[in-house]
Amino acid sequence: MPRKHITGFSNPTVKYLRSLREKKHRKREGMFLAEGLRLVTEAREAGHIPQMMVVAEGRDSHPLIDTLEAAVESQGGDIITTSKDILSKISGKDNPQSIVGVFRDFDVPLAQLDRTTSDIWLVAQDMRDPGNLGTMLRTGDAVGAGGLILIDHCVDPFSVEAVRASMGAVFTQKVVQAPWGDFLQWLRSGPGQLVGTSLNTDTDYQAERYTAPTFLLTGNEAQGLPADYEAECDVLVKMPMMGKADSLNAAVATAVMAYEVLNQRRA
Amino acid sequence: MPRKHITGFSNPTVKYLRSLREKKHRKREGMFLAEGLRLVTEAREAGHIPQMMVVAEGRDSHPLIDTLEAAVESQGGDIITTSKDILSKISGKDNPQSIVGVFRDFDVPLAQLDRTTSDIWLVAQDMRDPGNLGTMLRTGDAVGAGGLILIDHCVDPFSVEAVRASMGAVFTQKVVQAPWGDFLQWLRSGPGQLVGTSLNTDTDYQAERYTAPTFLLTGNEAQGLPADYEAECDVLVKMPMMGKADSLNAAVATAVMAYEVLNQRRA
Repeated sequence: MPRKHITGFSNPTVKYLRSLREKKHRKREGMFLAEGLRLVTEAREAGHIPQMMVVAEGRDSHPLIDTLEAAVESQGGDIITTSKDILSKISGKDNPQSIVGVFRDFDVPLAQLDRTTSDIWLVAQDMRDPGNLGTMLRTGDAVGAGGLILIDHCVDPFSVEAVRASMGAVFTQKVVQAPWGDFLQWLRSGPGQLVGTSLNTDTDYQAERYTAPTFLLTGNEAQGLPADYEAECDVLVKMPMMGKADSLNAAVATAVMAYEVLNQRRA
Repeated sequence: MPRKHITGFSNPTVKYLRSLREKKHRKREGMFLAEGLRLVTEAREAGHIPQMMVVAEGRDSHPLIDTLEAAVESQGGDIITTSKDILSKISGKDNPQSIVGVFRDFDVPLAQLDRTTSDIWLVAQDMRDPGNLGTMLRTGDAVGAGGLILIDHCVDPFSVEAVRASMGAVFTQKVVQAPWGDFLQWLRSGPGQLVGTSLNTDTDYQAERYTAPTFLLTGNEAQGLPADYEAECDVLVKMPMMGKADSLNAAVATAVMAYEVLNQRRA
């Protein structure tokens, strides 16, 4: 199958790929970018084949790239070769990865989420940092969570930064985006313990026994959870804070909580 | 005391402040920037008064700013007022914080580190992401660690990004920078258990009893610890990984370990 080769910076495909760095274009197209051989390979292993893959010309042969190219072509996708300079333009970085995959996004409607598939679910409210969000996905994968439910105005889980920080977990974790009211209604339609991490409690996170499925709710990086959201939680807990600061990084707090739940289950 | 007011983009002080965004200039000057009222206030509370403080003109009065200004002036430091545009130029951001503090850096020589001041110390090897490094400082504060020892080619703990991610902990945690050989010699000259987080072990991190003072060693984000570094550890442990990925984010792994050590101590 002949491959396309792009040489011009003003090529429409280059413009299209660059546009996917912006949320509004990702939403409109329903597509997103994942950069790097490792990420694209992890996507394939999770069953996500890029609809288009851009590969640096003159790269050394690599069996993983051959496997990816074969997978893309067997699905009718496009393989495009181009220069490092154009890859730089696409990625916005001086040293771009030599592979970029273009994937259809795949967040799951809340109504289709099957809570029986895991004992741990992560829930983020108004999370603003794409690195934190991607790190939560990565942690979710590590603890065997079913997925990450994004409440209110979280950053886009399909941004390049979030996808990168997830280290591939964006392809293996279920990703749901829902308003708080919808989430709460869905949650209460079945079993589930809603656990909020909060400064407004004296309950130590290790003093509580968590029941499955556990939904671990972490609030906005700067504000924490709104008071009326905390009021809906089955339990509020906090980590001990021995120093001057009153809170942990949001992704760190989620991970400490998630490992506590996992540890209780495996104890 | 009369304050300086800067109106020109080419003012030498503006150039000086901008230069402190780059590591080589920070090293040469021995100074670094912390942005925002919260960070500068936490610095003051930890005993670090900026040698220079830049404040946006026309800002609303705020008692915390008044306190900071008084502290700076009592130490003979400079208060500079300037426009939002020039603050944008200094910070490199469209929406700059309305306060920037300029601080003398203060990493501690290894020989002056008193290991008896805490039961937990964090050690990072070749950590490349300033957000991870700052987050480790923040976690260190939370678990009551004594400080963070940076081995080999870690990113600069006084970069704007690391300082921001530390949420002030850079001012409360001891920060040491040392080559591996020096660290190891220092470590073995006194009590201390060196615990490495690694994929090359079957020892679960909860199966080990940690002895004080515990030095928690986390390796480079992409490579982990070098084999010869792992060989020097008293124990290698790993967190359970239930998903597809084989590792956690480095700052997350450090936090999960650090809370395990803290939890064993308080149990």
